[in-house]
Amino acid sequence: MSSRKVSLEKKDEGVMPFGGRGLIAKILAAEVDPLTHPLGEDNKLILAPGVFAETTIPCTSRLSIGTKSPATGTIRESNVGGPAAEKLGRLGIAAIIIEGTLTDGPSILKIGFGGTTDIEAAYDLKGKGNYDTAQTLRQRFGSNATILSIGPAGELLLQAATIAATDQDGLPARHAGRGGLGAVMGSKGLKAIVLEDDTGERVAPCNRELLTESIKEFSAMILKMNKANKQYGTAWLVNFINKCNGLPTRNFSRGTFDRADKISGERIAELIAERGGKTGHACSRGCIIHCSNVFNDSGGNYVTSGLEYETVGMMGANLEIDDIDAIARLDRLCGDIGVDTIEIGATMGVLMESKVLPFGDSAGVIALLEEIPRGTPLGRLIGSGCEIAGRAFGCVRVPAVKGMAMPSYDPRALHGMGVTVATSPMGPDHTAGPVFSGVGGLDATKPAGQIKLSSSIQITCALLDNFGLCLYTSPVPKTIEFIGKAMKALYDRDMSRDDLLILGEEIVKTEHDFNERAGLTPAADDLPAFFRNEPLPEIDTVFGVSPDELQSVRRNFLQSKE
Amino acid sequence: MSSRKVSLEKKDEGVMPFGGRGLIAKILAAEVDPLTHPLGEDNKLILAPGVFAETTIPCTSRLSIGTKSPATGTIRESNVGGPAAEKLGRLGIAAIIIEGTLTDGPSILKIGFGGTTDIEAAYDLKGKGNYDTAQTLRQRFGSNATILSIGPAGELLLQAATIAATDQDGLPARHAGRGGLGAVMGSKGLKAIVLEDDTGERVAPCNRELLTESIKEFSAMILKMNKANKQYGTAWLVNFINKCNGLPTRNFSRGTFDRADKISGERIAELIAERGGKTGHACSRGCIIHCSNVFNDSGGNYVTSGLEYETVGMMGANLEIDDIDAIARLDRLCGDIGVDTIEIGATMGVLMESKVLPFGDSAGVIALLEEIPRGTPLGRLIGSGCEIAGRAFGCVRVPAVKGMAMPSYDPRALHGMGVTVATSPMGPDHTAGPVFSGVGGLDATKPAGQIKLSSSIQITCALLDNFGLCLYTSPVPKTIEFIGKAMKALYDRDMSRDDLLILGEEIVKTEHDFNERAGLTPAADDLPAFFRNEPLPEIDTVFGVSPDELQSVRRNFLQSKE
Repeated sequence: MSSRKVSLEKKDEGVMPFGGRGLIAKILAAEVDPLTHPLGEDNKLILAPGVFAETTIPCTSRLSIGTKSPATGTIRESNVGGPAAEKLGRLGIAAIIIEGTLTDGPSILKIGFGGTTDIEAAYDLKGKGNYDTAQTLRQRFGSNATILSIGPAGELLLQAATIAATDQDGLPARHAGRGGLGAVMGSKGLKAIVLEDDTGERVAPCNRELLTESIKEFSAMILKMNKANKQYGTAWLVNFINKCNGLPTRNFSRGTFDRADKISGERIAELIAERGGKTGHACSRGCIIHCSNVFNDSGGNYVTSGLEYETVGMMGANLEIDDIDAIARLDRLCGDIGVDTIEIGATMGVLMESKVLPFGDSAGVIALLEEIPRGTPLGRLIGSGCEIAGRAFGCVRVPAVKGMAMPSYDPRALHGMGVTVATSPMGPDHTAGPVFSGVGGLDATKPAGQIKLSSSIQITCALLDNFGLCLYTSPVPKTIEFIGKAMKALYDRDMSRDDLLILGEEIVKTEHDFNERAGLTPAADDLPAFFRNEPLPEIDTVFGVSPDELQSVRRNFLQSKE
Repeated sequence: MSSRKVSLEKKDEGVMPFGGRGLIAKILAAEVDPLTHPLGEDNKLILAPGVFAETTIPCTSRLSIGTKSPATGTIRESNVGGPAAEKLGRLGIAAIIIEGTLTDGPSILKIGFGGTTDIEAAYDLKGKGNYDTAQTLRQRFGSNATILSIGPAGELLLQAATIAATDQDGLPARHAGRGGLGAVMGSKGLKAIVLEDDTGERVAPCNRELLTESIKEFSAMILKMNKANKQYGTAWLVNFINKCNGLPTRNFSRGTFDRADKISGERIAELIAERGGKTGHACSRGCIIHCSNVFNDSGGNYVTSGLEYETVGMMGANLEIDDIDAIARLDRLCGDIGVDTIEIGATMGVLMESKVLPFGDSAGVIALLEEIPRGTPLGRLIGSGCEIAGRAFGCVRVPAVKGMAMPSYDPRALHGMGVTVATSPMGPDHTAGPVFSGVGGLDATKPAGQIKLSSSIQITCALLDNFGLCLYTSPVPKTIEFIGKAMKALYDRDMSRDDLLILGEEIVKTEHDFNERAGLTPAADDLPAFFRNEPLPEIDTVFGVSPDELQSVRRNFLQSKE
């Protein structure tokens, strides 16, 4: 960015089998000083589709975006759906590496087929929301263009800033949400990346028959286990997690919300059916899960797409807001400004706890959100996330780990998720190893066995993120089996289950190693003290995995063989 | 505080030879979970005079105040002059330990002779500045009362909040400034501590003759080496540090300020002579150094007392403000609001770098400061210090270590001070081991020998803080010799030079051990990256002590024998 120069490097043959999150970990570990300032010119922002993006395998359109995070100070990858990954895969691009900084106003990076890749100024986009930005760029470059952009929050270098990606409808409704990736993109002076073309070819498999057969079986499994996701969207989890006593309510002071039914996936689907909109919406062409949705207001006008569980949990129950229309407006506003709904939900909870506004005050939350694009001090505080806002308001109960907000699961009711959130090298990221109640036959309200279970799921998730597979393609064993078959069919590469687990482990290890070099202390692998001191009222239980057990997760990864 | 109860415990005989900082370290290490939230009810705030506070030894009126710091997350002791320590010493009080929290409005703790010690509500003081608070309480309890209080910043739980102490004139012009002690006092619901009486007796020495003789010699040494301090106040350092190229200018982007003469100690003394006021002012009865001053405005009206080097450096050169009257007003304002001038100076520098206001804009700084007591979001950001403000404004050049602002010495020109600032268990605290140019015969612009020198001075400073001795009583060897003689004369206790060094080492070790248990990573013992990347223009030099060398300081302390 410093010299407005784009250079193409041939993909190293050694890259395979690394893609997506795994490739990002490799590059960051090799090229970025872990002690560098996340917003300084020496940090790099890397976008990498998974290995399978170039294939016909369904649900492989996850684009990994990674950097040293300004929120956590750790290595950080977030991945996002939409057509971007598939386009990059078909263009044969393993990674885009954004380096340096460009201080001279916002620019865009155009990536097209046939050598049109370059960086150009886009002063007209300065301060624009993601919706306006996407529309402007699609008018300029054609409606087939896929846009990755930041909103005002990213330009303001705020830690809650996301990178938005357009979906199949051309709307910037998907987000690489967590860890402040948008702030890093903003620090580079980059407002948007435009993927102009969707031509390019899919890779030719070595064994088409085997591939077809494997995909058939894999698809059947995916469809079978995603019925609730398709019917109600991911917000089907509202009722489920509420029943587990794990739905964060009133800034994580309870695990059930008495009005959960008003904001549940079932209710959302009902309203969508009444008002138009869509359930069972696919974020990308190759998606067969269809967990997304299109949510309209009572007048039938588009409000937001992908009204998801995490948003509803953190902006709804956590704030005691039972008005799903208000939550949808908040989702849209966050999406347009380009801030993470989990982080902002947690931040608003902290502000409510600090008596800046009352719990349940959705109009107040909207008014506060609108401060962010204005860059007011209050807007900057909110856009800096719950840890910073909590410090500024002297709040003791801040649901943050490594400086980043926890997702919408109370760890006292869901111990396995608590372990993931405390120990993932990514910070408190549910997608790094979601452990729900009932998984592995364990009692989720008790610590026994959770370290092992979470560690194992963290490895699987690293694998999914490496191959670009959607999180919902997995229960563990069959997905890994499928990856092995697909590697054989596509590239004639033998990868046993063990080989794949070692690959997943290596990715997580590389990330932990980066964090160690960044100075991340073992004690950072813990939850806020209040989860150990305050019993969750519904089950009179505190989080019971000891700090030393939590620290064993990182130790074990670091000691694993490559 | 939770139960508004005061209980007295007999001083354990094993306390000696611990006092002040050393006693605080012992108590915190034993009684406070290092992982506790600094503003939570389990943290403790401890006030302890040094061992010699009960004696006639001059310059022993430093009151140590310590806690787990909300700014650094480490153990933290700040000490403050004024009559408080002497009063406590004569009352035979080794430490005041404030526990729990009282949420029901601000209260005061009265400590008097003859059992009147209790906690009472003081709702009328809510939100009041330190000057108003001190005046109100001295009217209520008599002009001999000594007041330790917090301003609005402490009540707002802000990390830059100080605890103010009244001086001999009854003005709250002395501060335990660093690390957010005021926020901890605020979190306890305590607005002020009133020491009602100044009766009580000094300890009877075992060997009065030896004591008198030792004090005589010690006093002569102190007087001899503090001529500049007495004549010009501590701001004599402005010209000296400027000559060393170490005066932080324009948010640490240069080491010399071309208008240093306008804000120098010499200039301050000249103005005081013209306008009334006082140089050579003593902060406490036993002080013979007289480094404080009373600064009036051009109309002869009192503005502030103790206009000190750190304030002038960080609020002057660092902000390119050359108007000493404006700096004095800023000092008064900070003192009244109860915020640390070093932290606020650094924060304003960061805001200037972030273009919130221009460098040199003293009126702008005053306007921003006035936001703090109002509790506005901007005020909260500023009162949260430079690290938090830097995060919210996306600033890369933030002069903070462990979340706390660096003092007014550029480490590229003053490597030894850089080592202290990076490695002290207290965070970036110049008083934890001031290493000036020329000390130890080393070249301050080079790394060689600085680790050893800083480590040794850190041990001495821990000793001074244990015995309650003012920092200015020391060059190293003779002061330690004197402490040994005094221990013999006072208590008939034999303490060799080695015994004393081991004691100092043990204190620092106890602190490092607390920090380790609090999860402080070795990498936290470093300076911000820009000191390694940007050469100081005047000498074309970066900070050259390696991270590993810096980390060796803590390692060595932790491995030392007790």
